[in-house]
Amino acid sequence: MNLLLLHSTEVNSEGYVRLDGARARHLVNVLKVAPEQAVRVGIIDGRQGTGRVVRCEGLEVDLICEFAGPVPAVPPIDVLLALPRPKVLQRLWAPLAALGVGQVILTNAERVERHYFDTHVLDAAVYEPLLIEGLQQARDTRVPRVSIHRRFRVLIEDDLEELAPDTRRLVADPGAATPLLEALRATSSGRVLIAIGPEGGWNQFELELLGARGFRAASMGARTLRTDTACIAVLAIAHAAIRAEEL
Amino acid sequence: MNLLLLHSTEVNSEGYVRLDGARARHLVNVLKVAPEQAVRVGIIDGRQGTGRVVRCEGLEVDLICEFAGPVPAVPPIDVLLALPRPKVLQRLWAPLAALGVGQVILTNAERVERHYFDTHVLDAAVYEPLLIEGLQQARDTRVPRVSIHRRFRVLIEDDLEELAPDTRRLVADPGAATPLLEALRATSSGRVLIAIGPEGGWNQFELELLGARGFRAASMGARTLRTDTACIAVLAIAHAAIRAEEL
Repeated sequence: MNLLLLHSTEVNSEGYVRLDGARARHLVNVLKVAPEQAVRVGIIDGRQGTGRVVRCEGLEVDLICEFAGPVPAVPPIDVLLALPRPKVLQRLWAPLAALGVGQVILTNAERVERHYFDTHVLDAAVYEPLLIEGLQQARDTRVPRVSIHRRFRVLIEDDLEELAPDTRRLVADPGAATPLLEALRATSSGRVLIAIGPEGGWNQFELELLGARGFRAASMGARTLRTDTACIAVLAIAHAAIRAEEL
Repeated sequence: MNLLLLHSTEVNSEGYVRLDGARARHLVNVLKVAPEQAVRVGIIDGRQGTGRVVRCEGLEVDLICEFAGPVPAVPPIDVLLALPRPKVLQRLWAPLAALGVGQVILTNAERVERHYFDTHVLDAAVYEPLLIEGLQQARDTRVPRVSIHRRFRVLIEDDLEELAPDTRRLVADPGAATPLLEALRATSSGRVLIAIGPEGGWNQFELELLGARGFRAASMGARTLRTDTACIAVLAIAHAAIRAEEL
């Protein structure tokens, strides 16, 4: 944990917060904090700062926090992801948040099995702690928005414009001629929305619908990657390309 | 599994191979093969081709294989990796092979715990099947070379020149001014060797020794990633940069 995230409601107007539970255990057992020690802290979806340990008894830790600077910007990339297998999605939440995404739009597709939608991994009570874990690793406070869509066509034709307006849109497609890095360079600046298909890929109808809504096909090379590896790879390349634009 | 990998000794001079065990189970239970069906096959470190199922009884599958084309090139990237925690290394083997690396050079460093070297995850009997799994996912036949080095200084000063001669060398360093993509663009073409430090980073001595041996510092951005996520991200960006050079 490189940043201790707090809910705004946990911190009083003087910056005082009392922790017990998992975060206190981590402070005591892993970081081995003692009174007067400083800890990097952040408010979920808010500013970052420093917490000074003022009391540490058993598995209870009291901090006085000061926050400074602006609220971090939302990461400039959103992902539109065909719902992966529950086991894969479970281990994806934390790295998605760590790499930095503004929102995760989960969708059905022909090659998504229906029962994937019944998993507890789609409960906010399950994925929010995993997103927070990723943010605490990467030192960010902005929690990715998550939405779940059972009808691909309704999502793409009706809902996407409101969910992700004015984005430059790419779809990862092994058959594409243009590599992802080049495809990104060819777009103007602004937020990026990247669609990543199911194991087995989008079908022709899905690719055409995405194409009609402005998604340009971009290739990740000849190697077929597992969905979790592919997501991390796509996000890493897109972030690197955006950093290069900013130079 | 997108490619069935075979040892050259398993295939006779007529291309005939009899499979039992895990690969036969996968063919029968997952791919549900039947006689006359074609399966993509490859020889470990050799050529790729097509296997035609000639017999399929119980959990035994016989194939007649034909191989064509050249042996795939070794991926153009090597990694020098401070030995991660066994649990992390275990889940890294397959994605490393899937993303494509020529060799994995594992090393000690100040912030590597000594007991990491005692893990069974460093036994070839454990990691080779995981590398093969990654290659079968990505449709490659070239198994990454693996070497394990307990003395960082001896590795860098004495052994590296022979292990990875004529490579353009980069070290992932959060403090670096130059992003990885730019750092790669600034080097001439040829094989790439990327050093990735332990959780907590290389120490100053290690960074200086790497610098003295031609490793340029390159940044992955402000977000601190877990080692497994960082490795996948670094390899994805480096492969994307090399693909861009080839355009």
